[in-house]
Amino acid sequence: MLALVIHSAGDLRVEEVPTAAVGPRQLKVRVTRGGICGSDLHYYQHGGFGTVRVVEPMVLGHEIAGVIEDVGPDNSAFKVGQRIAVSPSWPCGQCRYCQMGLQNHCLDMRYFGSAMRRPHVQGAFRQEIVVEAHQAHLLSDDITDGEGAMAEPFAVALHAVQRAGPLLGKKVLVTGCGPIGALLVIAARRAGAAQIVVTDMGDFPLRKAKQVGADEAINIATQPEQLAKYSADKGSFDVLLEASGNDRALRGAFDVLRPRGVIVQVGLGGEMSLPINTIVAKEFDLRGAFRFHEEFAVAVELINKGLVDVKPLISASLPFRDAGRAFALAADRTQAMKVQFDFA
Amino acid sequence: MLALVIHSAGDLRVEEVPTAAVGPRQLKVRVTRGGICGSDLHYYQHGGFGTVRVVEPMVLGHEIAGVIEDVGPDNSAFKVGQRIAVSPSWPCGQCRYCQMGLQNHCLDMRYFGSAMRRPHVQGAFRQEIVVEAHQAHLLSDDITDGEGAMAEPFAVALHAVQRAGPLLGKKVLVTGCGPIGALLVIAARRAGAAQIVVTDMGDFPLRKAKQVGADEAINIATQPEQLAKYSADKGSFDVLLEASGNDRALRGAFDVLRPRGVIVQVGLGGEMSLPINTIVAKEFDLRGAFRFHEEFAVAVELINKGLVDVKPLISASLPFRDAGRAFALAADRTQAMKVQFDFA
Amino acid sequence: MLALVIHSAGDLRVEEVPTAAVGPRQLKVRVTRGGICGSDLHYYQHGGFGTVRVVEPMVLGHEIAGVIEDVGPDNSAFKVGQRIAVSPSWPCGQCRYCQMGLQNHCLDMRYFGSAMRRPHVQGAFRQEIVVEAHQAHLLSDDITDGEGAMAEPFAVALHAVQRAGPLLGKKVLVTGCGPIGALLVIAARRAGAAQIVVTDMGDFPLRKAKQVGADEAINIATQPEQLAKYSADKGSFDVLLEASGNDRALRGAFDVLRPRGVIVQVGLGGEMSLPINTIVAKEFDLRGAFRFHEEFAVAVELINKGLVDVKPLISASLPFRDAGRAFALAADRTQAMKVQFDFA
Amino acid sequence: MLALVIHSAGDLRVEEVPTAAVGPRQLKVRVTRGGICGSDLHYYQHGGFGTVRVVEPMVLGHEIAGVIEDVGPDNSAFKVGQRIAVSPSWPCGQCRYCQMGLQNHCLDMRYFGSAMRRPHVQGAFRQEIVVEAHQAHLLSDDITDGEGAMAEPFAVALHAVQRAGPLLGKKVLVTGCGPIGALLVIAARRAGAAQIVVTDMGDFPLRKAKQVGADEAINIATQPEQLAKYSADKGSFDVLLEASGNDRALRGAFDVLRPRGVIVQVGLGGEMSLPINTIVAKEFDLRGAFRFHEEFAVAVELINKGLVDVKPLISASLPFRDAGRAFALAADRTQAMKVQFDFA
Repeated sequence: MLALVIHSAGDLRVEEVPTAAVGPRQLKVRVTRGGICGSDLHYYQHGGFGTVRVVEPMVLGHEIAGVIEDVGPDNSAFKVGQRIAVSPSWPCGQCRYCQMGLQNHCLDMRYFGSAMRRPHVQGAFRQEIVVEAHQAHLLSDDITDGEGAMAEPFAVALHAVQRAGPLLGKKVLVTGCGPIGALLVIAARRAGAAQIVVTDMGDFPLRKAKQVGADEAINIATQPEQLAKYSADKGSFDVLLEASGNDRALRGAFDVLRPRGVIVQVGLGGEMSLPINTIVAKEFDLRGAFRFHEEFAVAVELINKGLVDVKPLISASLPFRDAGRAFALAADRTQAMKVQFDFA
Repeated sequence: MLALVIHSAGDLRVEEVPTAAVGPRQLKVRVTRGGICGSDLHYYQHGGFGTVRVVEPMVLGHEIAGVIEDVGPDNSAFKVGQRIAVSPSWPCGQCRYCQMGLQNHCLDMRYFGSAMRRPHVQGAFRQEIVVEAHQAHLLSDDITDGEGAMAEPFAVALHAVQRAGPLLGKKVLVTGCGPIGALLVIAARRAGAAQIVVTDMGDFPLRKAKQVGADEAINIATQPEQLAKYSADKGSFDVLLEASGNDRALRGAFDVLRPRGVIVQVGLGGEMSLPINTIVAKEFDLRGAFRFHEEFAVAVELINKGLVDVKPLISASLPFRDAGRAFALAADRTQAMKVQFDFA
Repeated sequence: MLALVIHSAGDLRVEEVPTAAVGPRQLKVRVTRGGICGSDLHYYQHGGFGTVRVVEPMVLGHEIAGVIEDVGPDNSAFKVGQRIAVSPSWPCGQCRYCQMGLQNHCLDMRYFGSAMRRPHVQGAFRQEIVVEAHQAHLLSDDITDGEGAMAEPFAVALHAVQRAGPLLGKKVLVTGCGPIGALLVIAARRAGAAQIVVTDMGDFPLRKAKQVGADEAINIATQPEQLAKYSADKGSFDVLLEASGNDRALRGAFDVLRPRGVIVQVGLGGEMSLPINTIVAKEFDLRGAFRFHEEFAVAVELINKGLVDVKPLISASLPFRDAGRAFALAADRTQAMKVQFDFA
Repeated sequence: MLALVIHSAGDLRVEEVPTAAVGPRQLKVRVTRGGICGSDLHYYQHGGFGTVRVVEPMVLGHEIAGVIEDVGPDNSAFKVGQRIAVSPSWPCGQCRYCQMGLQNHCLDMRYFGSAMRRPHVQGAFRQEIVVEAHQAHLLSDDITDGEGAMAEPFAVALHAVQRAGPLLGKKVLVTGCGPIGALLVIAARRAGAAQIVVTDMGDFPLRKAKQVGADEAINIATQPEQLAKYSADKGSFDVLLEASGNDRALRGAFDVLRPRGVIVQVGLGGEMSLPINTIVAKEFDLRGAFRFHEEFAVAVELINKGLVDVKPLISASLPFRDAGRAFALAADRTQAMKVQFDFA
């Protein structure tokens, strides 16, 4: 059985790896689709991000859908042949944070394809994988495996929107509209935002953002005045969803965010220089958002029911053997949002 | 200029009334549509509700749309000929509650067509009316006056949903699906509810509820077991929106609402007998919801943008001279949701 | 080893019962003090409350302190001879609610001396008991075992206050000042309430409430006008902590609670008749409060540090063999707040 | 009548200024005490802070208490001879933010002794001042004018603590313990914090922090390991109150603040460099806190009732003619917390 294994920056190989045996409350899954995430790109391009480094061979990937091939004991909820999205997240359930309902901060978290712990947790860009039953979420007949594989990044966006508090009737600014930014637009719209404005420096992602529901898309490089018009009376927006990881985007939004505005920071970006006096004087509320927990099930339910449409964000699906080309495309912000692998 | 004037229970007359002069920051409006609210029905059928009684002639009505006929001084935001929805709510802005942002609890509130204060505040079922500019909200070209006149009851529903806290991904039960219950379905869906179940005792309103987005509609008189299936593990629903004003509906939902579930009580209903030990032991959170404030603007914006569709709830539009027939139809839950008057 | 065993209403016996062996992560405790709770009184007087009935012999009691006599394996945090308060609560840690951080709603809860499940969970009015290490909380040298045994009811009060949201600077009304009501005064004061008014029908508990920090104590039977003076401008109090379980107390407070006021219902009281229109029109927020979870540790910490003083509420300590007299005293609201047993 | 007037950095003069006439709903106040705030120090030392600059002569000062000398018309609540604390804050009541209950973000705010707007709002370091009745808060007989003049900085601390959400039972870290940091300790303790640790680089303020209730005071320059011990399991503290305005203090606390920890930033500090990935991955919630509104009345009430004791923080009281010496003392963190002027 083949998998995409990262060895170091730029060294990604298609390799034979073994499939584990199927234990109690586990499922064996034939993986059909797998989406390339920004973190996969960082592993591939730079061998990691921040202090997280690949120090041993690791199968990449954590955004997958597939078909159940085998069902372990004690799993009456599942049957062979069912199509599922797989959550990459496997908190311990026992630690202080799991018992507080903060499973995304589990002290013993396993997360597919992550080099945060050693040995690394192997990922899901592979033809077959054994998962825990609690990781599996049934897909409806109406949606494709590709849409199912969007559940993971959409869960990230839903979690960020949950962190923002209620959005019904709110005016929302989204800075940065790569795949997560665009999914934030979808999530914010679904959550009832009355007005959604997005900014980016590229026209392609801005067009995509409008396609999935943004009211206005501003190229901040070429039309900064379009954003500036929202600065009257200390700012118009109630909420900022920051997905660029760029401190200029974050700072630049301070003028148009009203006092007591909520900022949800989703984009990762290392060291940032911020005018703290503005945060104090306007009493902003800047909240980090990291991964998700219960939102994975919500993501699948909303996609299953057609309450959101993530299809416009799937730019391409390539054979997994063609990994180099897929990663190059995923990195090209002028023509791609989400790029997925086909593992058939 | 003619108006619909209630004198006492059952005594509703089409009468000539004067139109006020247009002062600064005011608008003269030619009323085109006006929706009949449950409270209008109570004034007509019973001369009031609870301790509120009609003690002097009062023009009914507070759900209206119309066209601007004249613009008073200091009103640069409006022009003759613009189509608007009119908020019936006119808080003082000065009192303790207005200064807390709780304008719906204003100590000196005026609200069109309400007998709560004396002299009563005259209503808006009339051919012409003078309103404050802050009561006027522009309608987009794409929507009808009838949809515009739905802004008021939809604002009530939006406010109730705001009181529930974030609904994104939540499981929501709506009990009672008259016009407000059905608008709660629309509002809860727009706010991102993942699952919406409604109950009522009539098949017509249940069909309407499904038409506007409910996942499941249960006739609680004939299919109580359909609701009972949600009682596993102390209950499935996160939120109950109670719009029937009937304590059997409220109590009946206690088994299917999970611990820490939120109940928003919108329906009025006099004295209710409740099992307080269940509220304590399951730690429910029962919140009243009354009228609205900032939600009127949100209602208009969501309708204007097509983010919600209230048209299926407008059952009929009758000439205002035909008031008796219109009220009879509005009271018939087997064939009508919202009934509106045409004031042309 | 002797224990206080309830067989049926009025039939309470001092009986020999076995002590369990001490397993891993367990402690054997020599019980020194045990407080009589209202539920113990109900078991003794009526054989239960609501639908909860004693159907087999059950050791009563769940408010205890004691000394560690033996330490099971894997318990490095504890030593023989240490004095502890013991939490009676033992949630499963696995169920849906435990994983949400709502352990007080555990689907498989064990709680000392409770007839809610069958077989009943045996209680702690006994000379020796084996407990889980997570139930044990060290007492500081400065406090007595009697104060330690107040941790449980104080945790109930702390949880109720947590349910109210932040109290810093708030105006708080407490209705009913038995032991829980008086502990609510202590908790609300500790949480920063600016003004605390209590009502009751007995002068003894009212005096006690003032002694532990209430600003004003009103005998609602003889001085109702003293409360009525708070009804101006739709009501003065921000928060009502209802500890009487009496619907007249609850309804009677509606006039003096401001719009959007928060009611925390702690008192149990069966069926209550409530004017639902007032809850709707004033948009009250009525929240049940049931038991506690993390608040037990907080209770011990606040008592240990002298940040609260619960001693004035310990009315008497009697030998456990004198159970009848102790229960009679505990039931006498003219002279007793908390009555404790001495198990030495 | 004399006042302390700043002309430019270092140029502070005792000058004759006129007293305004007393209009309706106004009071003439003989100022008795006035506390030197950090912003007064900045005006004196640097002519301003950030982009705020003194560009015309301005009376300094905004933390005052005094005695009513004259009562304008329509002021039945006040009498000549009453002692009051005076709130320096005078929001418009009309703007968007006032109508949301966010008066501290008023679009037309006047605040004594502030150069934020032009002409500057003259301050209260003067022998007599005319104020609006809503700015006046009666002092109880038990407290001194000096304590009354602490109401303003204590209101700042109360507001910051309100921004943190409920503190009952929480573990709180306070970084920086100048006067505001020390008042945060008092406010957090009053709000029910179970554990309060403070850090600073000076031993004098640390001793003061312990004196007003901190459980532990850590000199972060000489004993950094004392703080590091709180980093286990991703951090111990629930809440950080940041009063130093120093990014090393803020960053340094990230290791000891648990996931989902709340940071309230009170200290002003210009540009800060922050590791945004930590904020994201630990999902911190960083909230600015600026001035106060309703907390001024709460501050006076808590001081009046003896529920807090601010006296240990009043280091000295000097004649206002001795301004240079007073400012020098106020700037000396080795021997002074709050320094006040005596205007008698």
